[in-house]
Amino acid sequence: MKLTAEEIFKSVEDIRAKSPLIHNITNYVVMNNTANALLSIGASPVMIHAEEEVEDMASMASALVINIGTMSAPWVRSMFKAFARAAAQGVPVVIDPVGAGATPYRTTTARELISAGQPAIIRGNASEILALTDDRLKTRGVDSTAASAEALYAAKQISRERHCTVCISGELDYVVHEDRVIKIANGHPLMTRVTGLGCTATAICGAFAAVEKDGFLAAAKAMAVMGIAGEIAVKQSAGPGSLQMHFLDALYNLSLQDVRKHLKTGE
Amino acid sequence: MKLTAEEIFKSVEDIRAKSPLIHNITNYVVMNNTANALLSIGASPVMIHAEEEVEDMASMASALVINIGTMSAPWVRSMFKAFARAAAQGVPVVIDPVGAGATPYRTTTARELISAGQPAIIRGNASEILALTDDRLKTRGVDSTAASAEALYAAKQISRERHCTVCISGELDYVVHEDRVIKIANGHPLMTRVTGLGCTATAICGAFAAVEKDGFLAAAKAMAVMGIAGEIAVKQSAGPGSLQMHFLDALYNLSLQDVRKHLKTGE
Amino acid sequence: MKLTAEEIFKSVEDIRAKSPLIHNITNYVVMNNTANALLSIGASPVMIHAEEEVEDMASMASALVINIGTMSAPWVRSMFKAFARAAAQGVPVVIDPVGAGATPYRTTTARELISAGQPAIIRGNASEILALTDDRLKTRGVDSTAASAEALYAAKQISRERHCTVCISGELDYVVHEDRVIKIANGHPLMTRVTGLGCTATAICGAFAAVEKDGFLAAAKAMAVMGIAGEIAVKQSAGPGSLQMHFLDALYNLSLQDVRKHLKTGE
Repeated sequence: MKLTAEEIFKSVEDIRAKSPLIHNITNYVVMNNTANALLSIGASPVMIHAEEEVEDMASMASALVINIGTMSAPWVRSMFKAFARAAAQGVPVVIDPVGAGATPYRTTTARELISAGQPAIIRGNASEILALTDDRLKTRGVDSTAASAEALYAAKQISRERHCTVCISGELDYVVHEDRVIKIANGHPLMTRVTGLGCTATAICGAFAAVEKDGFLAAAKAMAVMGIAGEIAVKQSAGPGSLQMHFLDALYNLSLQDVRKHLKTGE
Repeated sequence: MKLTAEEIFKSVEDIRAKSPLIHNITNYVVMNNTANALLSIGASPVMIHAEEEVEDMASMASALVINIGTMSAPWVRSMFKAFARAAAQGVPVVIDPVGAGATPYRTTTARELISAGQPAIIRGNASEILALTDDRLKTRGVDSTAASAEALYAAKQISRERHCTVCISGELDYVVHEDRVIKIANGHPLMTRVTGLGCTATAICGAFAAVEKDGFLAAAKAMAVMGIAGEIAVKQSAGPGSLQMHFLDALYNLSLQDVRKHLKTGE
Repeated sequence: MKLTAEEIFKSVEDIRAKSPLIHNITNYVVMNNTANALLSIGASPVMIHAEEEVEDMASMASALVINIGTMSAPWVRSMFKAFARAAAQGVPVVIDPVGAGATPYRTTTARELISAGQPAIIRGNASEILALTDDRLKTRGVDSTAASAEALYAAKQISRERHCTVCISGELDYVVHEDRVIKIANGHPLMTRVTGLGCTATAICGAFAAVEKDGFLAAAKAMAVMGIAGEIAVKQSAGPGSLQMHFLDALYNLSLQDVRKHLKTGE
């Protein structure tokens, strides 16, 4: 499976033209960054979590992004409500099981969430994806770890069971949809020193899912764009602080030439 | 009605000299940015929302800013409590009805809130201001939209009913107080690609309301300073990421010369 | 008591090598910044506050940081639970009594919290530290104020009673542990115009406490590194916006040379 720069950039242009409304129920740490990343790529973010209104908002959105990073009971209730409504209305749902495997509460909630409806895309690092299937795994927290053969196996299993796309991000990103697999080799290690770029990747998956019906292609395009914008930004950056800023500028200014020059994908 | 650069900058100097305490009950997305904007202009921000202490804090503040962006039931209770106490003590209250019109919960809460006491200033985009009066309006979310004749009509109606200043921000900002209207033409479209600059404008209204008793003048000065700092920052910026940073620097370094050079107001 | 640049930098290298997991229960305003500061210095931050999982997370962490900035009842319950578990497992606990003295709720909670177990380090500005002991104090909010003789007296009293390190930050930082006192003269006034650098100092204390068992040395090293990174960043900054960015880059790039060149400590 090969993605071309032209296909990726076509979706970027669609996002910029349509400015799709992306409803995020996400964590406190990254709300500002993910809203800014969505604005920079051309989407319209909304961050709303109250039980009283998540269904109304989810049904108006072009995609719903659920991220359990700083979850608590009232937020979890809203996540399930919004998911059910989005699913009923055909709104694509992207789930980020942040920290699954780190605590029993987190693992259980993440597993219940991905089973509560049909997600379009699940995105996490290797240990989080493994934790969705494997009781024996204990992760060390929410850091990204290298995608492993086991995580890829787990991703395929989840994808087949849930009929959804699973994305494992790490030094290499793997996007899996049942028998299809694509590998994205973009990105830079300095990105792991900026909080929430994984969560931002999930939000950007939402923007692509809003304009690209095939969740597999949407996730692959989103991960490529994340990695490419990251590489461009790293070149201008003296450290994590400036990377966070240049990353948003790079998303905003992303051109077809940039994607052509940087794209590194493979089977 | 014409504002001069000297009058505007006099209030900036007052804020820098007095460092007024601004109590914010605001949304998760923008807390960091609005606190930084208040610090950059010279004020002292406090972000406190617990029901147990909002009354104590509101009564010590020089202005109270209420923003419903990521509201939920416990926060709404605190907003009403803080508002009542501030009103009782003569502390000016600035309200940002973020997303009014997007969901019934949001519209109802925003309407109840502006009617629960006498706000000094209400600031929103055209669709939010319209939603405070018009049941037939459906907004698409929290994006700013061009101020329309209907929004201006709605602003005048709300201002007369509530005896408060209403500010409609957009490509042009309109500040309305019963029969007085002032138009601010500062700002730049790139500012709409940074999350929460509208919320920041509301917080900055709080800082000006703390040193300028006339809510109409306070709001007009705040909107002019927001737009001018934005224009200065845009010139140095490669995109929304760098704009967010340069905007704070521009607020911090704002001089009378800057205001003189950039100010664009009219009836 | 004199700290050397080599001793300080040894702990920086330990943090970079071990990447200790720092569990933060902190406030909404600074979560993003403190997570980024911890990543920049080389630690692994986790922000988790749900009652259902704070004990599990605290027991896996190398340090627990509790910051009451935007507390409410459910968060306070989680703070006590996490503290008890961390204490039981020998995980060092760092407490930031943000705004103690500003409201009765805040003062009472801060006092109960520091008495609920044995903290390793308590860090606050002079008025917050005074409020932990003195009923007559009324602070104006959460701004830092000059460390006073009274605050130093209060710090010594708290340190003796609670057998912990107390750090008063301000223009000069005082780190106190019973009879030991060290003064750090690093830092820059522009740092007070960036929200949450005090909270960041507390989080960085957590990172140092994870690799340095002596809380007194951990706090002194953390405050020196904060001040030095701040000074380096200020030189490159046009205002508070750029300072926030350069500060993270400075933490990330900090070298032994930097510490040698800038360190200013004394008895």
